[in-house]
Amino acid sequence: MAPAQREPKVVVLGGGSWGTTVASICARRGPTLQWVRSQETADDINSHHRNTKYLGNEVELAHDLRATTDFVEAAECADVIVMGVPSHGFRGVLTELAASLRPWVPVVSLVKGLEQGTNYRMSQVVDEVLPGHPAGILAGPNIAREVAEGYAAAAVLAMPDQHLAANLANLFRTKRFRTYTTDDVVGVEMAGALKNVYAIAVGMGYSLGIGENTRAMVMARAVREMSKMGEALGGHRDTFAGLAGMGDLIVTCTSQRSRNRHVGEQLGAGKPINEIIASMNQVAEGVKASSVIMSFAEELGISMPIAREVDGVVNHGSTVEDAYHGLMLEKPGHEVHGAGF
Amino acid sequence: MAPAQREPKVVVLGGGSWGTTVASICARRGPTLQWVRSQETADDINSHHRNTKYLGNEVELAHDLRATTDFVEAAECADVIVMGVPSHGFRGVLTELAASLRPWVPVVSLVKGLEQGTNYRMSQVVDEVLPGHPAGILAGPNIAREVAEGYAAAAVLAMPDQHLAANLANLFRTKRFRTYTTDDVVGVEMAGALKNVYAIAVGMGYSLGIGENTRAMVMARAVREMSKMGEALGGHRDTFAGLAGMGDLIVTCTSQRSRNRHVGEQLGAGKPINEIIASMNQVAEGVKASSVIMSFAEELGISMPIAREVDGVVNHGSTVEDAYHGLMLEKPGHEVHGAGF
Repeated sequence: MAPAQREPKVVVLGGGSWGTTVASICARRGPTLQWVRSQETADDINSHHRNTKYLGNEVELAHDLRATTDFVEAAECADVIVMGVPSHGFRGVLTELAASLRPWVPVVSLVKGLEQGTNYRMSQVVDEVLPGHPAGILAGPNIAREVAEGYAAAAVLAMPDQHLAANLANLFRTKRFRTYTTDDVVGVEMAGALKNVYAIAVGMGYSLGIGENTRAMVMARAVREMSKMGEALGGHRDTFAGLAGMGDLIVTCTSQRSRNRHVGEQLGAGKPINEIIASMNQVAEGVKASSVIMSFAEELGISMPIAREVDGVVNHGSTVEDAYHGLMLEKPGHEVHGAGF
Repeated sequence: MAPAQREPKVVVLGGGSWGTTVASICARRGPTLQWVRSQETADDINSHHRNTKYLGNEVELAHDLRATTDFVEAAECADVIVMGVPSHGFRGVLTELAASLRPWVPVVSLVKGLEQGTNYRMSQVVDEVLPGHPAGILAGPNIAREVAEGYAAAAVLAMPDQHLAANLANLFRTKRFRTYTTDDVVGVEMAGALKNVYAIAVGMGYSLGIGENTRAMVMARAVREMSKMGEALGGHRDTFAGLAGMGDLIVTCTSQRSRNRHVGEQLGAGKPINEIIASMNQVAEGVKASSVIMSFAEELGISMPIAREVDGVVNHGSTVEDAYHGLMLEKPGHEVHGAGF
């Protein structure tokens, strides 16, 4: 048996709903510090065990969770960094971290998108800005609010080193939050980036009044399409059949709270994309992702018919009817090895 | 290019909702005869293009579909047999067929369960009763009524010979019904037999008020558990991430019309299983399947925690709370290679 070791201190960067939820999970296991930009949020967490702004007044956070607005204090004491900042602020925060972070401290991303401009996955950004720091991602069907309210849920922690992953995963577990492990960082990150596009496709279908069979067909074919691209980039297809793939896809496609599904429904109602985006106070990642995916697909020489049709509606003036018609025109082939829809 | 060939005549055996729907699909492509037991149903199909008993008065069948009650006539003229009879009548009908069926005529099953007593998959029954006849299965997320009403849907046709499969699949396609192909007969048949047990698990969850995250978690872990058994029996894991696996599972777990989901909900409401079964006019296949799966699991030496907990509630007096508690007690491991839940 291994001798007792010092407990690692988890530092969560970011004060949003999911960052706060994960910080609260970690604080139930051991020392955890959350860095937030707003003093008001820090006070709310420290004094009331609440993040009222993002999780409302009902959700009580772990009492041992401490928050700070002092970035350097947070960076210096971290044994594990959890990145809960949005993709557009990700590189900036990592760059700030570089000066204060101790060597080899693992960096776990909570971010499901790609970096705009570079199209990097977040772990690639970590590799570039903080070389030598093991980089991974925690992802799954995790609507923050539900997890925060104590409903059972599961996620997968992807890290290249499985010894480290198995050990780190312990920090992200409670009685009701189950963290599995995998070595497929590429697959988990790509699943997170891709699934929103397919949620738009299903949302478009809702507006056409598709049946339950149709929805399940689109989701099953979406998993196949996602696997195809994920594998071309070095991921494993098992990941796409797992929590970060089909698991997250199910929630994103069926939840009433899904922003990307909402975009698809609005497109189906004939609203122009700019108007839809302007009317939402949060970003629907799938809108940007659809064109990025199509350029990946072209580079890789693979056919992505569902993504192609979503891109057509979002960026090239097709209608939702065109999109579904386009899919139905393709002849079905071998379920796994067929090239098309 | 191949010279023109005689069009194969499809004979569908069985007058239920799905058999009739498939017969109507086939009749839109070429000559199709449906054998039904009841003269009234045959007349309804021939004179009114309806199967009022199973599909109501709204659904209009293909006008070229012809029905008969003459079994020998049907058997003698068949170039393809489609088995739309329930699993308990499957062997009997095949045995009757043996005397009249021409050699090498392919037999496509529409049946998702196992044979009681032997626990054979339907293609195994075909191999035993009609050796030499290629045996396959057509399955997917296909609520009969929705397909009959013309909503888009997809299925996969599994046959060992992919040349035959690609050719046969053409008979089961319309503009709105997409038939893919695969060689994984074992996987598709096992997915059909297994998924009902997991629909009971999700149904039990509904009664506990689980969240959307929890439901997606159970479904993602169900696909993994199904894959594990499917692979141990010679199936491919891709099948379980496809239409007959996760596709059908999504519909079976989420549809209000799902019998197995209903059983799970009723168990959660504290009703004894006998009372639930007695109150239903159709069979919920998952009830029988749960104990069969557990004996398979024991034979194969694999751990099937979700099926185990469902079996506990259905057959051994556990409560739904016990079942979910039992699952949550298991420590999550590697997402793909871990042995437990």
